[in-house]
Amino acid sequence: MGSRRGLFVTLEGGEGSGKTTQRRRIVAFLRERGHEVLETREPGGTPAGELIRDLLLHRVESLHPRAELALYLASRAQLVEEVIREQLARGVSIVCDRFTDSSAAYQGGARDLGIETVERLNDWATDGVQPDLTLYFDVDPEEGLARRQSRGSGDEALDRIEREALGFHERVRAAYRVIAGRHPERFRVVPTHGGEERVWERVRSTLEGKLVEWERNA
Amino acid sequence: MGSRRGLFVTLEGGEGSGKTTQRRRIVAFLRERGHEVLETREPGGTPAGELIRDLLLHRVESLHPRAELALYLASRAQLVEEVIREQLARGVSIVCDRFTDSSAAYQGGARDLGIETVERLNDWATDGVQPDLTLYFDVDPEEGLARRQSRGSGDEALDRIEREALGFHERVRAAYRVIAGRHPERFRVVPTHGGEERVWERVRSTLEGKLVEWERNA
Repeated sequence: MGSRRGLFVTLEGGEGSGKTTQRRRIVAFLRERGHEVLETREPGGTPAGELIRDLLLHRVESLHPRAELALYLASRAQLVEEVIREQLARGVSIVCDRFTDSSAAYQGGARDLGIETVERLNDWATDGVQPDLTLYFDVDPEEGLARRQSRGSGDEALDRIEREALGFHERVRAAYRVIAGRHPERFRVVPTHGGEERVWERVRSTLEGKLVEWERNA
Repeated sequence: MGSRRGLFVTLEGGEGSGKTTQRRRIVAFLRERGHEVLETREPGGTPAGELIRDLLLHRVESLHPRAELALYLASRAQLVEEVIREQLARGVSIVCDRFTDSSAAYQGGARDLGIETVERLNDWATDGVQPDLTLYFDVDPEEGLARRQSRGSGDEALDRIEREALGFHERVRAAYRVIAGRHPERFRVVPTHGGEERVWERVRSTLEGKLVEWERNA
């Protein structure tokens, strides 16, 4: 990739949105196009971040929304400084499972801390590092949760966030739609109906458009 | 105490400042005066907070200053919402070992995130809950570290913050002095020379002054 900065792609979406399957295809697609690709995730992606992830998702039962958000911000700041900033500068493209918009949707929207407040805190935590492209896999919460719960046969326990009631996941979806309107330059809503192949066609076409723009600007 | 709100006292100070000894005397003094007193500490004081404390002080080696601050904010938000706000409202007085000013001094000052920036983040994390009185035990860092390191005979390992170089602790002290100037209504600098009894005389006289004011306003 020479001296070109890497492309920073983040994936967002509710439970059962097919995000994981599409992530694998996105990574493979970018590699075929010659990108060196680093896959990471939030919370997590660094030694400190993975400890925070474990704490957030499995070790604490009761957490105030502001405390919850601050833990996500901690993991995020560490990921940006330990991994993202340096890898992008080296020309490595990054595909990150959840990033700033998850906090804006879950804590800002669904837990009522305020989307704008959370975005200001995100800007502080990331020191302004933003994705070039955010793909939001939009799924009806009822359908998504049904898919998530039927996956495997109880091989993976639901985490603290996944156990939230349906109304919570509906508020998350409403918040993502507000966020989409706030960041039209990078945020793309991907409908998830029609099966994996049709979803992939939508993703690929969005990615190709972004790559043209990215190659022109780099 | 009837329907009177509790008194909220926070203790600040560098390593080896004698803070722990004075804390015990403050608690005993308030109980003699008829206060129901809850002792707590930061980071920690709640189940989630103690997990965060362990992570911050013992489990992570490498942490960016913004990630470090966000972890302290998480512990703080949880402590305010799970303990402090409710106990103060019930009339219980609280003596808290470290609070918002520690973040302003250590991360804002010594780690260069900016004292004002950290104070804004503190206000968000605490939802504006502030101490009635903050006692800062001021000690020359070189003397304090020498005292701290000679304490016992290696019975307690130095934590991640205590292992910082002398220059770091000098920047912490300079920051506390800036913070003192920003919050004259609640922040008191307590010199620590002259031995435990003389320090206690200073603390007791400050506490008595604050109690007169508090009893008048309650």
